[in-house]
Amino acid sequence: MSVTYPKGFRAAGMTAGLKPSGQPDLGLLVGDPGTRAAGVFTTNLVAAAPVGLSREVLAAGGGRAVIVNSGQANAATGARGEGEARDVTARVADELALDRGDVLACSTGVIGEPLHLDRLLPAIPTLVGALSPQGGVDFARAIMTTDTVIKGATAEAGAYRVGGCAKGVGMIAPNLATMLVFVTTDAPVAPADLQRLVDGELTPRFNALTVDGCTSTNDTVLLFASGAAGDEPVAAQTPGWDGLAGAVGAVGDSLLAQLAADAEGANHVLLIDVDGAASEADARVVAMAIADSPLVKTAAFGGDPNPGRILQAVGSSGALIDAMAIDIAIGDVQLVFGGVIAPAYFEDDELANGARVAMKEPEIAIRVTLGAGPGRSRAVGCDLSYEYVRINGEYTT
Amino acid sequence: MSVTYPKGFRAAGMTAGLKPSGQPDLGLLVGDPGTRAAGVFTTNLVAAAPVGLSREVLAAGGGRAVIVNSGQANAATGARGEGEARDVTARVADELALDRGDVLACSTGVIGEPLHLDRLLPAIPTLVGALSPQGGVDFARAIMTTDTVIKGATAEAGAYRVGGCAKGVGMIAPNLATMLVFVTTDAPVAPADLQRLVDGELTPRFNALTVDGCTSTNDTVLLFASGAAGDEPVAAQTPGWDGLAGAVGAVGDSLLAQLAADAEGANHVLLIDVDGAASEADARVVAMAIADSPLVKTAAFGGDPNPGRILQAVGSSGALIDAMAIDIAIGDVQLVFGGVIAPAYFEDDELANGARVAMKEPEIAIRVTLGAGPGRSRAVGCDLSYEYVRINGEYTT
Repeated sequence: MSVTYPKGFRAAGMTAGLKPSGQPDLGLLVGDPGTRAAGVFTTNLVAAAPVGLSREVLAAGGGRAVIVNSGQANAATGARGEGEARDVTARVADELALDRGDVLACSTGVIGEPLHLDRLLPAIPTLVGALSPQGGVDFARAIMTTDTVIKGATAEAGAYRVGGCAKGVGMIAPNLATMLVFVTTDAPVAPADLQRLVDGELTPRFNALTVDGCTSTNDTVLLFASGAAGDEPVAAQTPGWDGLAGAVGAVGDSLLAQLAADAEGANHVLLIDVDGAASEADARVVAMAIADSPLVKTAAFGGDPNPGRILQAVGSSGALIDAMAIDIAIGDVQLVFGGVIAPAYFEDDELANGARVAMKEPEIAIRVTLGAGPGRSRAVGCDLSYEYVRINGEYTT
Repeated sequence: MSVTYPKGFRAAGMTAGLKPSGQPDLGLLVGDPGTRAAGVFTTNLVAAAPVGLSREVLAAGGGRAVIVNSGQANAATGARGEGEARDVTARVADELALDRGDVLACSTGVIGEPLHLDRLLPAIPTLVGALSPQGGVDFARAIMTTDTVIKGATAEAGAYRVGGCAKGVGMIAPNLATMLVFVTTDAPVAPADLQRLVDGELTPRFNALTVDGCTSTNDTVLLFASGAAGDEPVAAQTPGWDGLAGAVGAVGDSLLAQLAADAEGANHVLLIDVDGAASEADARVVAMAIADSPLVKTAAFGGDPNPGRILQAVGSSGALIDAMAIDIAIGDVQLVFGGVIAPAYFEDDELANGARVAMKEPEIAIRVTLGAGPGRSRAVGCDLSYEYVRINGEYTT
């Protein structure tokens, strides 16, 4: 149930020996002739070599296949890394008898470490030989780093299918993260319309996710359309558009939830909904400030509602807010009224206990109302646990 | 060796019963007649009641005394909190036979919880009775929350003395934090010149400190001048100015170092020096992005140099940088050359070992050079440990 659910795609995954762990680390996704692609990439100015290469491929109208390795990020590797990314896609193109401008690349793993080309290049013929319309799960497994579960989703829109997979557990923040997302459809969609689907349905969803406020060097979201399930192009004005957009969005929603739930060390997903902001941008700034606050995240870990920490994050977010107009609820329990924390909260009565129950749910819903205008936004975050510190304190040592 | 080191100041500290722990929680600092004050306050738009009150006192030219409580922050307490802050300063003024406009107030502790006025107000006569020229350490002890040590510093400039104390261990970030800083001098300085000393010598230092990127509702830095050690005003053009500014800066440096070393759960101080930025503002943005990155902070906890995480933080800081012009050194060991991590770093040789040694020092020096211009800035941070998660996961539960 992954990227090969729609017709017209084959995929494979294998162990090439790039990771010390011996886990699968090389994946390939290929669309039938006529496949189109669109995407969005990290905003980090220190972008990995494959990000630059893939940007160029899409800009030139190409993109029928994508080769993905885990283990090394091929970032901060300079001209050597750029050359090696090209060597990899060239070898894939040759094996598939594709134009070199039709192969995209993604990498994820340790920043700075050179690709283990001596293992990667010889594995490519094997990988190509393993391509199969049932290979989506193998592909999804090969792209994982510290992910603990495979993340895949599917949806349908009439005769069209949509499938997707994703990886990413840390360094996930606004403007994407160490997040790789691949979504496929068998609807026929022109590149410009595919980009509309990325911009409208995928980018806003994945930009809402923040694990630790850290934006990766390698973030990539790619959307492929094989056209294998129809001849009539689906475009912004055609009847099938809304259904297809909805199905792409549904796959995005599912992958987003799976990413948040598997965030490094996370025990709780934080759903931060801000409304009443002067603008959507202000709402987003406030929602992200709460989701990224170490004090809110540790409070969530401890099961402590602590409305003062939420107020602190709102007030220092950078958005222009009226401190006396802030309402805050955790779950169904309102704790802050017009900028004032209900004094009853400190008297250990029903109010505090109700909030504590809401703060121990797997999904903690924090709702902030600013009373300034129509702006609203959601951020999806997680708690900060001992396990996050352990994972990231020991990552390469 | 604290705020009563200069002549013309008396202070006291006591246990009024505001904290469940039974630790000292109420402090008072009073200057002799003629004492002037200046200060700087939190930029958090959710500012505590005493912050608003103290701003007004300074704006009206007052400020001979400051009453400080720990235990409750008196923030997010609305009109009630404003009224109670006024009740407290009025009672202090009455006991000291001062004008009510001469008493400043600071609070630190749990946000939202109402002040325990029933205990605070009756304690004030006792506190006033305990005032003494040797009371600086008692005062410094009474303002602590989760601080583990008393923080005080002194310096001299010719015939003049400078003393100071501070508290703050978390929620410390750019633009001040749950940080209360009190600096005194017996030099005669007019209010406008005192403000120059705050702006020039204290604000930049304390704004460099970040424990967790969280800006408190209560941050306050106050500078008092009693004039008890001389008659001739020290001003920006007089011969004693540079010496006095240097002494105030030295006290600021010492308090800053003490705050960083006592940061919640911290085992290492991070000294992040950025130069070669297009502007000082850009340098500051980059330095703070590194100091606040959970990935850099957990790497410091783990003793892992991980230059990729530093690059990741630089690239997503928001500053316009050229990824191919970044050099990074940890301690004396340069690891990144023109945006490229030295491949030797991954081969476990001298380079990596040298960096690992530097990453295990009590003070970890990270130097980033951007090659874009003359802008430079320093951020002072700390590592992110299990202990930070424990302290903040359990703070009120």
